Amino acid sequence: MPRIAVIGLGQAATHFAIGLERLKAGEIQPYGVPLANMDLGVGFDELEIVGFLEVDNRKIGKTVSEVARKFYGFKKVPGRLSGVRVYRGLGSAWVRDLFPVSEEEWPSQLEEVYRTLKLLRPDIIFDVSTTQYSRPYKDMAKLEKDVYAGKAAPSQVYAYLALRLAEEEGPLALVNFNPTPVANSQAILSAAAERGMLVFGDDGATGATPLTADILEHLRERNRKVRGVAQFNIGGNTDFLSLLEESRNRAKEYTKSSIVMDVLGYDVPHYIRPTGFLESLGDKKFVAMHIEYESFNGAVDEIIVNMRVNDSPALAGLMVDLARVSWLLLSNGFSGTVRQVNSFYMKRPAPPGTRSQSRVIAYQNLVHMLESIRKPVSRGIPEVGQHP
Amino acid sequence: MPRIAVIGLGQAATHFAIGLERLKAGEIQPYGVPLANMDLGVGFDELEIVGFLEVDNRKIGKTVSEVARKFYGFKKVPGRLSGVRVYRGLGSAWVRDLFPVSEEEWPSQLEEVYRTLKLLRPDIIFDVSTTQYSRPYKDMAKLEKDVYAGKAAPSQVYAYLALRLAEEEGPLALVNFNPTPVANSQAILSAAAERGMLVFGDDGATGATPLTADILEHLRERNRKVRGVAQFNIGGNTDFLSLLEESRNRAKEYTKSSIVMDVLGYDVPHYIRPTGFLESLGDKKFVAMHIEYESFNGAVDEIIVNMRVNDSPALAGLMVDLARVSWLLLSNGFSGTVRQVNSFYMKRPAPPGTRSQSRVIAYQNLVHMLESIRKPVSRGIPEVGQHP
Amino acid sequence: MPRIAVIGLGQAATHFAIGLERLKAGEIQPYGVPLANMDLGVGFDELEIVGFLEVDNRKIGKTVSEVARKFYGFKKVPGRLSGVRVYRGLGSAWVRDLFPVSEEEWPSQLEEVYRTLKLLRPDIIFDVSTTQYSRPYKDMAKLEKDVYAGKAAPSQVYAYLALRLAEEEGPLALVNFNPTPVANSQAILSAAAERGMLVFGDDGATGATPLTADILEHLRERNRKVRGVAQFNIGGNTDFLSLLEESRNRAKEYTKSSIVMDVLGYDVPHYIRPTGFLESLGDKKFVAMHIEYESFNGAVDEIIVNMRVNDSPALAGLMVDLARVSWLLLSNGFSGTVRQVNSFYMKRPAPPGTRSQSRVIAYQNLVHMLESIRKPVSRGIPEVGQHP
Amino acid sequence: MPRIAVIGLGQAATHFAIGLERLKAGEIQPYGVPLANMDLGVGFDELEIVGFLEVDNRKIGKTVSEVARKFYGFKKVPGRLSGVRVYRGLGSAWVRDLFPVSEEEWPSQLEEVYRTLKLLRPDIIFDVSTTQYSRPYKDMAKLEKDVYAGKAAPSQVYAYLALRLAEEEGPLALVNFNPTPVANSQAILSAAAERGMLVFGDDGATGATPLTADILEHLRERNRKVRGVAQFNIGGNTDFLSLLEESRNRAKEYTKSSIVMDVLGYDVPHYIRPTGFLESLGDKKFVAMHIEYESFNGAVDEIIVNMRVNDSPALAGLMVDLARVSWLLLSNGFSGTVRQVNSFYMKRPAPPGTRSQSRVIAYQNLVHMLESIRKPVSRGIPEVGQHP
Repeated sequence: MPRIAVIGLGQAATHFAIGLERLKAGEIQPYGVPLANMDLGVGFDELEIVGFLEVDNRKIGKTVSEVARKFYGFKKVPGRLSGVRVYRGLGSAWVRDLFPVSEEEWPSQLEEVYRTLKLLRPDIIFDVSTTQYSRPYKDMAKLEKDVYAGKAAPSQVYAYLALRLAEEEGPLALVNFNPTPVANSQAILSAAAERGMLVFGDDGATGATPLTADILEHLRERNRKVRGVAQFNIGGNTDFLSLLEESRNRAKEYTKSSIVMDVLGYDVPHYIRPTGFLESLGDKKFVAMHIEYESFNGAVDEIIVNMRVNDSPALAGLMVDLARVSWLLLSNGFSGTVRQVNSFYMKRPAPPGTRSQSRVIAYQNLVHMLESIRKPVSRGIPEVGQHP
Repeated sequence: MPRIAVIGLGQAATHFAIGLERLKAGEIQPYGVPLANMDLGVGFDELEIVGFLEVDNRKIGKTVSEVARKFYGFKKVPGRLSGVRVYRGLGSAWVRDLFPVSEEEWPSQLEEVYRTLKLLRPDIIFDVSTTQYSRPYKDMAKLEKDVYAGKAAPSQVYAYLALRLAEEEGPLALVNFNPTPVANSQAILSAAAERGMLVFGDDGATGATPLTADILEHLRERNRKVRGVAQFNIGGNTDFLSLLEESRNRAKEYTKSSIVMDVLGYDVPHYIRPTGFLESLGDKKFVAMHIEYESFNGAVDEIIVNMRVNDSPALAGLMVDLARVSWLLLSNGFSGTVRQVNSFYMKRPAPPGTRSQSRVIAYQNLVHMLESIRKPVSRGIPEVGQHP
Repeated sequence: MPRIAVIGLGQAATHFAIGLERLKAGEIQPYGVPLANMDLGVGFDELEIVGFLEVDNRKIGKTVSEVARKFYGFKKVPGRLSGVRVYRGLGSAWVRDLFPVSEEEWPSQLEEVYRTLKLLRPDIIFDVSTTQYSRPYKDMAKLEKDVYAGKAAPSQVYAYLALRLAEEEGPLALVNFNPTPVANSQAILSAAAERGMLVFGDDGATGATPLTADILEHLRERNRKVRGVAQFNIGGNTDFLSLLEESRNRAKEYTKSSIVMDVLGYDVPHYIRPTGFLESLGDKKFVAMHIEYESFNGAVDEIIVNMRVNDSPALAGLMVDLARVSWLLLSNGFSGTVRQVNSFYMKRPAPPGTRSQSRVIAYQNLVHMLESIRKPVSRGIPEVGQHP
Repeated sequence: MPRIAVIGLGQAATHFAIGLERLKAGEIQPYGVPLANMDLGVGFDELEIVGFLEVDNRKIGKTVSEVARKFYGFKKVPGRLSGVRVYRGLGSAWVRDLFPVSEEEWPSQLEEVYRTLKLLRPDIIFDVSTTQYSRPYKDMAKLEKDVYAGKAAPSQVYAYLALRLAEEEGPLALVNFNPTPVANSQAILSAAAERGMLVFGDDGATGATPLTADILEHLRERNRKVRGVAQFNIGGNTDFLSLLEESRNRAKEYTKSSIVMDVLGYDVPHYIRPTGFLESLGDKKFVAMHIEYESFNGAVDEIIVNMRVNDSPALAGLMVDLARVSWLLLSNGFSGTVRQVNSFYMKRPAPPGTRSQSRVIAYQNLVHMLESIRKPVSRGIPEVGQHP
């Protein structure tokens, strides 16, 4: 029975909590949950959310129900969620401007958060906290030093605490949905492997980028020569606003741009970036994409895509899947990370050096890998390659 | 050295002829030729077009160069094409209004066309004649009777002549790019198998439908519930105009609609159809697509796609591939049809009863199949399934 | 105090009834009512709907509240509407398939409907019944004959009854929102002028066509040479379905196509038409538009517009305006028709021979005309021309 | 016979020079020249370009023909242009990084440029130099001081030199097409009025903003409540690249944003900005626009616009008009500025404090104003208002 702790109670986490309960109650169909129809050995009703960690003082101490109603305008919240509480999370340098913590307080805050995690006894930790710019860690000693000096990004500090928890309490899975390099930190991956712990990440693959990847795949498979790719995003929720801060946007850009080269096999001019904030859009992003390519005998074609997408529910749907997938893999003794999982669910798939794949290919590989676990008599994992 | 005869000298066939020669001359890159970078054992420069068959009296007797200049406005035509001639093709009931043939003339015309084919000695016959509405043939006796009575669709008559040619001259490949059921006629498939002949078809997969299929696959893999699909097409070339005639449009509609059910695994309201003719667009179609779907926790999203695409060069690019693929399969003793080929290149893939696949999956399967032929030590053909 | 009778209780009429009551109650802002902020001498709260006429037996005898709830899914309906009833309307040949009336019954039905109108004592009659294909009437004797023979289109029969009512009861206004030529029938206009009655029409200007007209105006004012216009519409309500029937669509096509020539001053290839029915869209149409034009020094540009629009509320907003405008003009002794009103609110503006105008120009002229009535000291009506 | 000097020989100026000569030679139609069909008393063939000023050392001393071929890839350049030369322009602080000028050189450079202008004897000066961020000048003494200290923006320095030229040589017109406040500097306007000189500006109205303004006008005239406006632009020419520099972009943003408030009459969230640079687009911008609005009875609609537009030819077309309009107004003794001209052709219309208008209204007013000059017996200038 997987117990889930969630770091960050924004829109996505709220949709995850509410949607999961509605799913258990049979009120909604599992739309937006990619592997909903696949038997992963664990049902939706076995998933249990045990608590949330947050840095926003207005949310700490409240229940999910209260936060959902007050901050995100949900009118009906499943009853069970009034029993799930929000605990104090890590307010490091990245959000210090908003939720200040002094240098002296830092060590004690670190221990408080660790005690909270220990109390919650999660099998799975989801990190959906705000985007933070940081570099990957190759060396555990350096990470450890930065953690205690308050210099590591919060998501990396949480990873460090998760490693400590795994050491003391046994295997668990950490899934990092934000762009901060966690699963892409070799130091964290190696330590996880030693402790039988799983780490997935980084940066949950919602929004327009997965579709862009698949359209590029579509063009590659026809050997059409892409000339350029423009992809604009504009959103109106606060998560989106924070993306646009210079340093955070930089983290994001690093994440996304690799898909052009990785999927097409050659580079072309591209502009793929969260572009602006427009309050009136709320949680529903507007995306515009323009791709120009050359076809046979010099013909030039163009594809224009416009989307209105709800990002938070999309991420929440992936969270439901990853809870089940994490549990299946934990139960089967996997540790470290599993590339096929990251390649489908993440924009910047771990381990470091993993090339982005189009999602349709990543999906095929993921399904084969999971099937081979569920039906071990199968003849191995046929891997679908990318460039013939 | 594959010899290619082409039925129908419209825009697509003209682009095929010119583009192939420019490709051989190194003037263009093989963009729009899906498997250009794969070694299929036969190079572009080995492909030879030996002649065209046409029903338009203004084209018959001319060379490809003359037709390309006069009808399609090409200014520069590779020199070699002034040696390739246009022969009289079959003007049956379907185009009798435009290019009349009396009932008495029919048998002799049939024999004249057969003699032309025999003279051209093609290894590969491409049928890119105009869309004709017809039903599939299950029974060879019925087909034979209709052929001689002038009641079968021209593409089916050509198939009959190709079967005769294969019987007398040995194996060849027939590729039907129009929606008339040829490869989907069990009678033709069975007769081909007996004669070591290959038949591929039906309805070359260009335009927006392959992209629609792949976007639907993208949604299916996320278990997003599609609510409806609208896909408009408007074009300005004469091929497009003929599509809009009532009966021909019906043939087309039958072709395309199956992708929604086949790819998604459930049916939803959809409108996918050539919609109108607008002369100012010329060969460059305008496509508009609207897909609304439900994501997690009741969220409703929408995707709008607009395309400007040159259909004829796109089809011509597939023709280059199919010449090489046909030759490879003929050389390796394949006969009848090969589903993996049709599933990628055709909108209504043979044999009858074949479910449409998204193109990304069809592509993977095609590549595996071809690789297993080229590198026979490989461990078999792993087949990528569709609905996990 | 204007009393309003409405012919046809579909989605638009329902939105009109509900929206007007909500407007009076201050529950909504008058968004979508073009002249809401202009003092026309009559307030929203003075408008009174006195009854509806319908041919659908399931609606006849019910109240608007019941129809709104049962047929159109409205959950909250303003209380006052439970006092407004639906009466039997004219079921002529056009809808005879759906709601049959025998030839013998016709004369008595005609009288019954007339009695209903007389009972309702409307100052304003809105015709929002279903699109019917018909020709304009130049001659009153011919119209009269066809009315009694059951051969005129229902909207033309209603116009005849309205003329009779005006003769007996005094001036009233008839506004025809469907494409049937009513205000474009010279016979009706002349008879109305004689009776001090006003007739406005035909075909309420909602949907994409007004925007298309204004985009064409934008291009014309820059002397950009439009090469072609494609405009697709797909909708999911039953009104839309009926549009697609062959003969009705023909009526519609006739209506819309003139804008290209009229606004640009030259003709170009265009395809502007209700294109298809897609149930999943419901009342919210999807529109796609493509315009290619030539700019300075041979440059070629393109504009692509996609819209999701609720047609019925848009029409309902115009109805609110036209109630007030009709009353103002009636009160000031206008009769026959008023071109400036039709040019803004209608797709096929009366009187016959009126050229379509871009909406921005029509709006300026309408506002000037109305201001000159409200402030008669003004120096006359400066008319904004179209082609300098 | 108007003599025209042009500051800045980028893409727009090159299109202006080539297009004008082709127009004179009858090789092209005057598409993209708004008032081409209006008799302004001066023909295209009377317009003469006498020289260009540039800061790019690679262009100085060359002819327009050489620049058009080498920098902008034009293959055919009208012969007459090989007689039109490029002179050294002002390389001030704004472009000092690219084309350095030392503080000591500044005064002598200023005089050299003035001598060039004097030599060219222009009636009309077009400023299409690169966007520079600056503040308007209210006080002439302050402007004069900044000019000699090298602290005013180049466009403002040119304006100062033009004023000097007007004083010495008589009336001329200066048209500022870049966003630097020139016509919006009260100091410059007043000085121009004293010298019988005309100043038009600022920021030529090309690209998506004029269409956005007209779509907003369309919505305003229906009293639809706009909820938010997103408008992205991405381009690939070097002018566009320079726009994206922080400070220059700021100038641009200031320019554009006012249209929402000015046209609608209320403010809403909006994001309207040059968004990115994508080399593959070249001179052809991609624009994506999203507008959500509320219609009657709570209905919510959306309009999505995508454009591919060639900005430089569009601006060049306006330049042809402004040459003729400037000459007409100069000939009729106008001085200072003329609001109706700026309101149609400029994004930030002078004089300071002028509210943005939708272009369709600005067009009507412009045409009336010009007609009243050409046909002075007309009864005055009826002005079309904005908010009824």
